[in-house]
Amino acid sequence: MEAFSDGVIAIIITIMVLELRVPHETGLTALRPLIPVLLSYVLSFIYLGIYWSNHHHLLHAVDHVDGRILWANLHLLFWLSLVPFVTAWMGENHFATVPVAIYGLVLLAASIAYYILTRALIALHGRTSKLSIAVGKDFKGQLSTGIYAVGIPLALLRWWLGFGLYVLVAIMWLVPDRRIERTLVD
Amino acid sequence: MEAFSDGVIAIIITIMVLELRVPHETGLTALRPLIPVLLSYVLSFIYLGIYWSNHHHLLHAVDHVDGRILWANLHLLFWLSLVPFVTAWMGENHFATVPVAIYGLVLLAASIAYYILTRALIALHGRTSKLSIAVGKDFKGQLSTGIYAVGIPLALLRWWLGFGLYVLVAIMWLVPDRRIERTLVD
Amino acid sequence: MEAFSDGVIAIIITIMVLELRVPHETGLTALRPLIPVLLSYVLSFIYLGIYWSNHHHLLHAVDHVDGRILWANLHLLFWLSLVPFVTAWMGENHFATVPVAIYGLVLLAASIAYYILTRALIALHGRTSKLSIAVGKDFKGQLSTGIYAVGIPLALLRWWLGFGLYVLVAIMWLVPDRRIERTLVD
Amino acid sequence: MEAFSDGVIAIIITIMVLELRVPHETGLTALRPLIPVLLSYVLSFIYLGIYWSNHHHLLHAVDHVDGRILWANLHLLFWLSLVPFVTAWMGENHFATVPVAIYGLVLLAASIAYYILTRALIALHGRTSKLSIAVGKDFKGQLSTGIYAVGIPLALLRWWLGFGLYVLVAIMWLVPDRRIERTLVD
Repeated sequence: MEAFSDGVIAIIITIMVLELRVPHETGLTALRPLIPVLLSYVLSFIYLGIYWSNHHHLLHAVDHVDGRILWANLHLLFWLSLVPFVTAWMGENHFATVPVAIYGLVLLAASIAYYILTRALIALHGRTSKLSIAVGKDFKGQLSTGIYAVGIPLALLRWWLGFGLYVLVAIMWLVPDRRIERTLVD
Repeated sequence: MEAFSDGVIAIIITIMVLELRVPHETGLTALRPLIPVLLSYVLSFIYLGIYWSNHHHLLHAVDHVDGRILWANLHLLFWLSLVPFVTAWMGENHFATVPVAIYGLVLLAASIAYYILTRALIALHGRTSKLSIAVGKDFKGQLSTGIYAVGIPLALLRWWLGFGLYVLVAIMWLVPDRRIERTLVD
Repeated sequence: MEAFSDGVIAIIITIMVLELRVPHETGLTALRPLIPVLLSYVLSFIYLGIYWSNHHHLLHAVDHVDGRILWANLHLLFWLSLVPFVTAWMGENHFATVPVAIYGLVLLAASIAYYILTRALIALHGRTSKLSIAVGKDFKGQLSTGIYAVGIPLALLRWWLGFGLYVLVAIMWLVPDRRIERTLVD
Repeated sequence: MEAFSDGVIAIIITIMVLELRVPHETGLTALRPLIPVLLSYVLSFIYLGIYWSNHHHLLHAVDHVDGRILWANLHLLFWLSLVPFVTAWMGENHFATVPVAIYGLVLLAASIAYYILTRALIALHGRTSKLSIAVGKDFKGQLSTGIYAVGIPLALLRWWLGFGLYVLVAIMWLVPDRRIERTLVD
């Protein structure tokens, strides 16, 4: 399951670049309309990097899986697979309010899917398992979900309010989940 | 062979999202024509998830392969590789009857290819092997093949009759094949 | 190197399906112009399957690699990576003579690249190595190269003469390389 | 991390071929406008092959990673993921000066990212580690970075001055990093 998930995330992160349409002109000005697309691409690249890193650490703490875990994992991959689509929609329309809000909606759904996956894993491994202790209360995860929920309606008012909040969450996560790392290394 | 198959299925499941064409408008109404495409995508995502999961369980029970198995496996991957095409055709044409029927035809062919693969594996491992006992009579597989065969002509009459039957099979399979899991875990 | 090559071949075999353009009509007749594209796709799928299988068997017999092997391998992957392009060109133009000849040219180059790779591997492992004995004189490989060389000019006269010869080679290879399998299994 | 990086590089190297647009004509002349695209493709294929090979050797010498390494690695993959875009822009515009310069800019950024990654790895493993001794002063890496920095402004004067320098660096690297190989094999 880990190899499959890693593969899917690697493909998602890479095919996003196919949405960077090659301009027909050759001047530097031809790149200017691509700047918002590139900015969206950078943010999504970082988000997928965060998911890959946290997901990778999480699955390393896993002993066994069942059908429920498998589908909780595919559910997460489903929302991540929509990231290239919303990234391109947001970028090509220069951060129009609705696409920015929908981008946040996909981030929100992915964060909820990740939460469901961790709970299903803890339920299977037991509350006293190394995994359960490592994940802990997952304050950062729940805070992210909350910030997305606030960011989506704000994006409809001013696109940069929503976008700024998404960037904030990304910065918050840039350091990989040390709780799991710390517990597992012992 | 397992890594190659996992890779191919991971790529198929992910490139499907490239068929979700980015709209040029920015309103929520711009997403409305995408709803059937998204619905088709969800169904195909679940189907490929089911195939990945069952195929993965199946190959875990395998000891050795020969050329025949290898090609039975590539034959299955061939039909699965057509899923993105029929998904897009069905979705972009808002579930017109012929595309829905052709979608079912690809599902039917994939289910037959899966059946051939299991029989070739059992023939190689022997009727008394763990694999053979685990697969058993494969009632669910044969029932699925039958439902597709019924769904295809029905789709030509009313698209939702065929589509409903495909959804029914997907629900039936959402729980991974516990027979194999059970036998192997012992 | 094996995992990387398997990954590249898995991606090549899968992205070919992106060249099957989704028709805008919904009748069965909309699929008719796709038949040559689908036929080309089937042939290329089988060819890539053959290369994956033989390449996989070959690399299993390998003990160590050096920079020369690495680039001989990338050289083979380069020609294989052109297969989706020539497949689409040949299919979309309904087997026009020049595209059929160019398709053969890519097959010819790939078969020469495979030959170079096997020779580099034998040079590294020694003429008395298990690998060397397993590959043997590689009559089938050299015959294939010869048939492509004949097929390319014939394709310019009548497309089906060239195409027929490519199909002939594919059939000849459908059984994976038992020589290597036999020697290694002992 | 190694498997993920290998996967991403394998996908980048392969999706580049999707930028080779299939011509609608069937004559050999239809391929003529594709020659610069194909040439760009060959150069980028070799560059990605070099990065894969060196990166692979580098990570084999790695014992453990932390969050910093992980992001230094993703930073490198980010710049490599832009290669298909700049390759297509340069090729489709027949080596216009600005695209050739931007192509060099991405190579420059990737080489700096690779440098940062090696320094982060040495910082983590210690100056007396096998990895540190193997990487050494990395004269070839720093020379490449310098040549790109010279090639970018030269490309704006005459495209072939820049392009020629990029080709020179590629030739310089075609032999994989023997320093690491030598130290590790001992």
